[in-house]
Amino acid sequence: MALVALEMEKVNSLILERLQSEVSLIPELARHLIAAGGKRIRPVLTLIAARLCGYEGDRHISLAACVEFIHTATLLHDDVVDESDLRRGRSTANAVWGNKAPVLVGDFLFSRAFTLMVADGSLRVLEILSNASAVIAEGEVAQLVTTNDTSTTESAYLHMIECKTAALFEAAAQVGAVLAGRPMADEQALATYGRSVGVAFQLVDDALDYSAGQAELGKTIGDDFREGKITLPILLAFARGDEEERQFWRRCLEDLDQRDHDLEHAIRLLDKHRALEDTIVRAEGYVADARAALAGFADSRAKAALTDLADFAVHRAF
Amino acid sequence: MALVALEMEKVNSLILERLQSEVSLIPELARHLIAAGGKRIRPVLTLIAARLCGYEGDRHISLAACVEFIHTATLLHDDVVDESDLRRGRSTANAVWGNKAPVLVGDFLFSRAFTLMVADGSLRVLEILSNASAVIAEGEVAQLVTTNDTSTTESAYLHMIECKTAALFEAAAQVGAVLAGRPMADEQALATYGRSVGVAFQLVDDALDYSAGQAELGKTIGDDFREGKITLPILLAFARGDEEERQFWRRCLEDLDQRDHDLEHAIRLLDKHRALEDTIVRAEGYVADARAALAGFADSRAKAALTDLADFAVHRAF
Repeated sequence: MALVALEMEKVNSLILERLQSEVSLIPELARHLIAAGGKRIRPVLTLIAARLCGYEGDRHISLAACVEFIHTATLLHDDVVDESDLRRGRSTANAVWGNKAPVLVGDFLFSRAFTLMVADGSLRVLEILSNASAVIAEGEVAQLVTTNDTSTTESAYLHMIECKTAALFEAAAQVGAVLAGRPMADEQALATYGRSVGVAFQLVDDALDYSAGQAELGKTIGDDFREGKITLPILLAFARGDEEERQFWRRCLEDLDQRDHDLEHAIRLLDKHRALEDTIVRAEGYVADARAALAGFADSRAKAALTDLADFAVHRAF
Repeated sequence: MALVALEMEKVNSLILERLQSEVSLIPELARHLIAAGGKRIRPVLTLIAARLCGYEGDRHISLAACVEFIHTATLLHDDVVDESDLRRGRSTANAVWGNKAPVLVGDFLFSRAFTLMVADGSLRVLEILSNASAVIAEGEVAQLVTTNDTSTTESAYLHMIECKTAALFEAAAQVGAVLAGRPMADEQALATYGRSVGVAFQLVDDALDYSAGQAELGKTIGDDFREGKITLPILLAFARGDEEERQFWRRCLEDLDQRDHDLEHAIRLLDKHRALEDTIVRAEGYVADARAALAGFADSRAKAALTDLADFAVHRAF
């Protein structure tokens, strides 16, 4: 990420500038999330993809900010949904401000993202990012429907995370090629790269929520479990378990009837069936897809950075 | 509205078509609101404004649908915020589906609105509607901040409703002139018309929430009161009341400490200070502004329809 550190600083400045509003709660609340210093992996994707494609202007700065605004809006709305207590190790916006403000500030950020895109003036970019936004919303609703349903199929789950997570990674990378005016084949290659990294990223996130290593680092684990969220580790353990184990999963995740030590028991079952390891193996498959998608690009520092970023999606925190 | 009945049917068909999603909860939930058959006053504004400006194409159909999508998304998010039990006489989406789904389906509708605009291809339209969306979100957050604060000034209140309500009326009307390629003066005139109608509409809404006539029609009243929402009728009664009355308003609206018969007492105080009547007088002032804004347009059936629509904003239900 050092490759785009200077550009990322410009993105950060633009984000803070465009958060301004005469309604002071807006920058206050949004800064809470944005200053929490997430990995900014999505805007970085746009910056490096643009570099890979030989783009030399500065439109990628504002489009990277758009991508982060859309992501932050999604986080704010997702917090309302998830009732998770911690995100990035800090209290979520809605634990501090209630449910109301985060929804509306999310709407503001989302609108600001579109205002920035309109100022940029590319209908192609607007098309890619507005489609991505609709797909993300569909994925989030689909997740709502599959939550608490242990009969969710693996393919339904993978399709859902392609929508709710990978669509924005895909759009973020694809925009780089659009900016540089590269042919459709390059756009598609970067879209595939982004989508694959996004799926890998989400699979690893789902595994980390049950990871003993995370617990040792002082991070909260078990959020997904407490909400009854059905993720790949659960689907694998459920499929490989006996009837008694399935009863356990149904009680905890469908009925949300959870008792002391249920999370520990869940982690033991995931371990017994190698569900976390196999989820990571699946993620590694997507990383391989991501690398393969870059094959048509000549070697460069940008290409190496994208390869590193794909690896990071899987190997962070393991 | 008979003037654009045929076009409005096309808008309705397009809305239902663009609600489609493989995630069935989306059309299900959105249809609940859209089929509830609101007045569709905002898309009608776009249709008649386009007609007034001599527009003869069919782009106004999809842009009217955009406007209604943005409005519906706002309603869904506002319901999360308001905890109001009834809207348009039916149970709100979140009374039926909880808080989660309406937020996400609202995001979907909002994204769909932008997808439709992008397909239309006018950056000017995108600029107007994305700005309006950001202003609406700012107004909603500002409302959150003024709720429960009886020291809100009249001007702060009016600015807030210009943002949260009038901005979309303004954009909806302005888009008509943009479609017809009319000069900036006409765009501005329709923008002023729309904004004025929007403010009048909201003022009347705020008065209707305490109207005995509404109660007789079987509609719920007192929603704003129960939430501690500070509206113009309250500000007028508060300013004109004695210290004992102010204590009453503070207890009910700031502390939200409400008892049996408090709503009845509030209505008596509003009556005593002619607060509802004077709110309507204020609204009539905005209707006069709306009429004046149309002065530059030659007489036509469309102009007459816009004048009627402005009157309707005030005289519905009185």
